[in-house]
Amino acid sequence: MTVIEWCGDSVRLIDQSKLPSEESYIQTGDYRVLVDAIRSLKVRGAPLIGIAAAYGVALAAAKFDGEEYYSFRDHCATAIRELASTRPTAVNLFWSLERMRNVLERGTTIESVRKALVSEALRIHHEDREMCRRIGEYGASLVPQRSTILTHCNTGALATGGDGTAQSIITTAHKMGKTVNVFADETRPLLQGARLTAWELMKAGLDVTLITDSMAASLMKQKRIDLVVVGADRIASNGDVANKIGTYNIAVIARHHGVPFYVAAPSSTIDITIASGDQIPIEERSAQEVTEGFGRRTAPVGVRVYSPAFDVTPASLVTAIVSERGVHTPPYDFKKTISDHD
Amino acid sequence: MTVIEWCGDSVRLIDQSKLPSEESYIQTGDYRVLVDAIRSLKVRGAPLIGIAAAYGVALAAAKFDGEEYYSFRDHCATAIRELASTRPTAVNLFWSLERMRNVLERGTTIESVRKALVSEALRIHHEDREMCRRIGEYGASLVPQRSTILTHCNTGALATGGDGTAQSIITTAHKMGKTVNVFADETRPLLQGARLTAWELMKAGLDVTLITDSMAASLMKQKRIDLVVVGADRIASNGDVANKIGTYNIAVIARHHGVPFYVAAPSSTIDITIASGDQIPIEERSAQEVTEGFGRRTAPVGVRVYSPAFDVTPASLVTAIVSERGVHTPPYDFKKTISDHD
Repeated sequence: MTVIEWCGDSVRLIDQSKLPSEESYIQTGDYRVLVDAIRSLKVRGAPLIGIAAAYGVALAAAKFDGEEYYSFRDHCATAIRELASTRPTAVNLFWSLERMRNVLERGTTIESVRKALVSEALRIHHEDREMCRRIGEYGASLVPQRSTILTHCNTGALATGGDGTAQSIITTAHKMGKTVNVFADETRPLLQGARLTAWELMKAGLDVTLITDSMAASLMKQKRIDLVVVGADRIASNGDVANKIGTYNIAVIARHHGVPFYVAAPSSTIDITIASGDQIPIEERSAQEVTEGFGRRTAPVGVRVYSPAFDVTPASLVTAIVSERGVHTPPYDFKKTISDHD
Repeated sequence: MTVIEWCGDSVRLIDQSKLPSEESYIQTGDYRVLVDAIRSLKVRGAPLIGIAAAYGVALAAAKFDGEEYYSFRDHCATAIRELASTRPTAVNLFWSLERMRNVLERGTTIESVRKALVSEALRIHHEDREMCRRIGEYGASLVPQRSTILTHCNTGALATGGDGTAQSIITTAHKMGKTVNVFADETRPLLQGARLTAWELMKAGLDVTLITDSMAASLMKQKRIDLVVVGADRIASNGDVANKIGTYNIAVIARHHGVPFYVAAPSSTIDITIASGDQIPIEERSAQEVTEGFGRRTAPVGVRVYSPAFDVTPASLVTAIVSERGVHTPPYDFKKTISDHD
């Protein structure tokens, strides 16, 4: 399974909305198809959205058929704007497009910028693969020799350019020979846990049990969960974490039961421009995802629905944050963490 | 809408598994059809199961076509056993069947016992209607003049012989002129909140918003929930509450956010023979309800599933229990409560 790849003048990516019943691929030379794929969650997961968006800019540049440099720049800038408008919460999207914009602004000829944009997108993808590997290694040190882990949503290869973030911790611990059992929350409304995480973990040979989101507290009461690992879509300077709806719910019940709660994310997820989670915009999704998400209507016609895509977990409920730069514990000093390495 | 009624020699009841897309009814003279309807959740809700089971015994008696009294008694006893085997957790089922068994054991002739069983079943139904009314009145006193209530699963007319338990509190407060907004958890895996509660509350003219089970914590953090009301399938002597899976989850997050958590149930739900919730057997449901609950498979083939139908909320997380006998607060003395009235 190759989740996403650059094919010279097109991008090929797995259509995640068809999983697990069908493993089908989208291949396109049109960045607008990627815009639609991101918006409709055919491609999702904060790091992977960043990679897809970068390839989108490279595609827009490759397909420009004029000769005038300023028109080329305008064309690419439009593509960046459209790609940036797809999802409001994941910061990796903006971070990745910012890198592409910097390349665009440093350029002078169409041909050189085209090449540079492709290189930058490939670099973002490559760095992400490396980032997953390092998060997995740092995070696996937190996993006891025998343990049962609860995870939420999907944070695996299907969410990143490599082996995942939170999920990379699970699979790395497994590869190191630790005995790891996993409970995967189904993750309503879009069931990324049931459709994607359970599928990926079974493929990787792990022992995985699927539950509904409402069963996690009951499991913790029975002392059947040793630790929680989840991903993040945006982390504020103070350590507040925006992630898939339901994450905050788990953080509260984990604290109530004394279960460690770990967040894994690339440092590009950390947004040092915002002080706290209150400043993170939360995308609201359509009612349909709740009322008829899976082929058949399961709620009365006309019912009002509230469906935030994300929630914010306050730093006080997070045991540690694992990035490719290490295991960060409170009080966080992300400004220092990031500048030390840049 | 008549949820369940005795029609002389048959029982007519709404098929809840078809709601909200179709309002269709089952009419049967065969108690085995009721056994199947209870097992397959066409009829559900702890008090309503008790009523359906009582009518089932009355049907078995009505349809017995022999003349020998001891065969008649055996036939009815078999029906009671089969009806009792449908669901293990709800205590109302056993309580109701116990009343029918007492009538059976006191009898001497087929004809007199037939009549007495019908009378007892109608009495159970009538008492339940009264019980709903009184729970609604006692509970409404706990609802502030303007408030937003979170509820879980279905506890309305579709769960009882009257206007419901927890839901009767909501509709009674509404009828009293209080401004009541409701958030209804969809209640995975079987979506009783989305399919039944949202439908009933909309029909009753209430302001209802549907959420997934994972969104409740986020709403509480935003201070958008003033109180929680839920039902119960069994309550132990110490006040521990077994109810639909996900209830304990809400109780934990309600406590974390300082939101009052009320349980509403008829006193027949209180099982004074058990000391604590640890002794309540928890039914496990089939994997299919999680993996293909929406009409289409949404999880990998062969994935392991853990699907308890209920969880147990410790008394320490319950603000008060509302029964038809009043508002009970800890420390509970249910033995006294019940014997005072019997």
